[in-house]
Amino acid sequence: MVMSMLAPDTIAAISTAPGEAGIAVIRLSGPDAFAIADRVVASKTKPSDAPPRTMLYGHVKNPLEPGDAAVDEVILLLFRAPHSYTCEDVVEIQGHGGRVAAHRILRAVLACGARSAEPGEFTRRAFLNGRIDLLQAEAVADLIGAQSERAAAVAIDQLGGSLSSSIQALYDCLINLSADIEATMDFVDDELPPTTIGGLIARLQTARGQVTSLVQTWHEGHLLREGARVVIAGEPNVGKSTLMNRLLERDRSIVTDIPGTTRDTIEEQLILAEIPIRLIDTAGLRDADCRVEREGIRRAEDAIRTADVFIYMVDAAGGLTTEDAARLAAADPSRCLVIVNKCDLGTRISESAIDGGLKVVRASLLRDPDVTAIKTALIGVLGVREGVPPHAVISERHFAVLTGALAELDQAEGALCDPGNDGALLAAEHLRAVLESLGEITGREYSTELLDAIFSRFCIGK
Amino acid sequence: MVMSMLAPDTIAAISTAPGEAGIAVIRLSGPDAFAIADRVVASKTKPSDAPPRTMLYGHVKNPLEPGDAAVDEVILLLFRAPHSYTCEDVVEIQGHGGRVAAHRILRAVLACGARSAEPGEFTRRAFLNGRIDLLQAEAVADLIGAQSERAAAVAIDQLGGSLSSSIQALYDCLINLSADIEATMDFVDDELPPTTIGGLIARLQTARGQVTSLVQTWHEGHLLREGARVVIAGEPNVGKSTLMNRLLERDRSIVTDIPGTTRDTIEEQLILAEIPIRLIDTAGLRDADCRVEREGIRRAEDAIRTADVFIYMVDAAGGLTTEDAARLAAADPSRCLVIVNKCDLGTRISESAIDGGLKVVRASLLRDPDVTAIKTALIGVLGVREGVPPHAVISERHFAVLTGALAELDQAEGALCDPGNDGALLAAEHLRAVLESLGEITGREYSTELLDAIFSRFCIGK
Repeated sequence: MVMSMLAPDTIAAISTAPGEAGIAVIRLSGPDAFAIADRVVASKTKPSDAPPRTMLYGHVKNPLEPGDAAVDEVILLLFRAPHSYTCEDVVEIQGHGGRVAAHRILRAVLACGARSAEPGEFTRRAFLNGRIDLLQAEAVADLIGAQSERAAAVAIDQLGGSLSSSIQALYDCLINLSADIEATMDFVDDELPPTTIGGLIARLQTARGQVTSLVQTWHEGHLLREGARVVIAGEPNVGKSTLMNRLLERDRSIVTDIPGTTRDTIEEQLILAEIPIRLIDTAGLRDADCRVEREGIRRAEDAIRTADVFIYMVDAAGGLTTEDAARLAAADPSRCLVIVNKCDLGTRISESAIDGGLKVVRASLLRDPDVTAIKTALIGVLGVREGVPPHAVISERHFAVLTGALAELDQAEGALCDPGNDGALLAAEHLRAVLESLGEITGREYSTELLDAIFSRFCIGK
Repeated sequence: MVMSMLAPDTIAAISTAPGEAGIAVIRLSGPDAFAIADRVVASKTKPSDAPPRTMLYGHVKNPLEPGDAAVDEVILLLFRAPHSYTCEDVVEIQGHGGRVAAHRILRAVLACGARSAEPGEFTRRAFLNGRIDLLQAEAVADLIGAQSERAAAVAIDQLGGSLSSSIQALYDCLINLSADIEATMDFVDDELPPTTIGGLIARLQTARGQVTSLVQTWHEGHLLREGARVVIAGEPNVGKSTLMNRLLERDRSIVTDIPGTTRDTIEEQLILAEIPIRLIDTAGLRDADCRVEREGIRRAEDAIRTADVFIYMVDAAGGLTTEDAARLAAADPSRCLVIVNKCDLGTRISESAIDGGLKVVRASLLRDPDVTAIKTALIGVLGVREGVPPHAVISERHFAVLTGALAELDQAEGALCDPGNDGALLAAEHLRAVLESLGEITGREYSTELLDAIFSRFCIGK
């Protein structure tokens, strides 16, 4: 474990969002929080004399400014270490919102010796002081950044410790398993009953199953946290912009019957089955004469390559073009949804014309604005399971660590199966690597670089 | 006085600005605030059992949602009536910021019987319950909307009651004066010594002087609250866009030497001497062939008419055009600043060519980027007094009421000077009108319409 240097200074930041609003909160944390509050706030009781977990009414003054004019009328929230967000002394100053007022308070506390907090520094201190683990710290950022109800629910579940306890249970199992494997090393090879080895391997496989289950939650975690990129592609004039407008339930794209109307990719966000979706309407895919349009097509192809799902639209009345057929043949069924549009104008596309592995929806978007079937199919291709209660789902970072752990578990199993060649020794070594990986997830093991990477994505003031 | 119907329901709103941030605050006010908190918050102590002015740690749950999952981890701030912002029972729920989290808490409290608050409804209740007067309520909106340090300082001064006490002092004077004038009615005309009348007139004139002083603060109040519209005008290619860029210290306008480059008016904000200034760069004023450009010129002329100050630029090297001369002759010196630009290219404009009443600055903007002299001149034309401590300044609303009061005071004085014709009776009537006006300012007298007009400009949650 890398020890961190606990900076014993006092940090301050505006913890509410900028903008005109009734309330803004300026948070102070560190050994001088109360002393600074004593200097900047005039109140009946001195902040440092007030009982902990109480509130004070007062006026902020800036001792460095001339005159004795109040900076703001405020409520102080006083938290004594370790009973605070950071486990340090914390004072929250609740003043008026707006463009200027909160900054005047912040300036007053900075003038009295506080330092401007870095992004996530309050939560980083909460972690370093042992109040929360790294999974809970990450859940704070997830909760603040949540784009959907379910993303928020999953984050609060993780903040409550659900993912932490799954990882902890796994850790405890593997610690015991590791000890039992090491114990076998005291035996001479032929003394060890094969049933013992079999039992150890079975326990290893159980643990492996649990890690695999966690790894499988990555897809949902990714959709909830990063959202899905869904690209609408197809030949010109098949109805891509109309589909986009129907899905968004308003007019965003300019819809005309002139092929090539959509010159650039247009991005919009919608929430579908609790998943934030960036919907990307692309320029018609055709050999364009115009240089601007060719650039649009290049971007469209880029967008398709990086999409979580692409919706490929074809014209029922027009029939499949050679290019349509080629693109559909190349499409990955796990991330493609085909929409056969303009079915009301007759169809020249038979059922068998499109590969049976691809999900297909037939539609007449201009005549029938209902896109429920398309939404349901899209949810299916995205692999979203609806109606499941919020549960622990891992992030990109956890995925990388756990995938490595799976490989180590496989090697540990391989070693155990071959006890003759120091198998137990090797297996124990691989298990130590797995335990280290789990420690990296919860923050039992961490480096400054890891913390920098995690907390840099926080906002200032949290 | 119009009595208001105190709605005895419990209101709720998010009181912090929207956006990703560490903290969001949901405020509840009304008779059921604690009962609702009891229903939505799981905490060691029930909110309704906790001592007032304390904080509780807990978890918000939404009783209307399936399962027992937490909506957020929160700190509760408990204020018992009348010791709260609104003088009602108030519970503030401090949760996580972001797009979704705060809304989930709000939804939970609304599900438990709170009603969504209207804009300014918390402050309106604070006023209706007598905790603050109308001037202080207006100061809350001014503070939140303040665009400069000084605007914020003036607002907090007014929130502290400085303007209220000026108005109150005037009110008390006029009440006494009114009583003394009414007392003279008990005398027969020739019994009343002329010195008595003289004394009353002198007191009336003192009061009039005080009202006049207040009315004169309107200009500063207007500049601080609404800011100033400063329009840069002049013939094409005299350097208007260059001046705009220099004042903003960056490149906003496209600067070329092709006359007519700026087709539309461009608005930018800067803060000068604590005054928020909307700087408007207009299209060159010339007879344009192009229809689009003619529209730009029409807008430029509109902008000049409604500006607080217009900066008229002329080309030193090119000399005054006939149109320049005509526009300068028509300019109001109290709101015009003339800039003779391109002096480095030689000057064909003599000192006497421009009316002596107009403020003129000579410049060579392309060669010399320093615009300090122009800024100083602009501050002078705006009539900003720098270095004066923040003091009571009235708003548009107060100006209208006090201007009416001045007229009534004049009529009262006229009546007193003519005591034979029921002068005292008439004077007393005019003074009653003045007292009513003052009551309208502080909110001693109010109508629902007035409150609606004032509080509709508040944000929701204050």
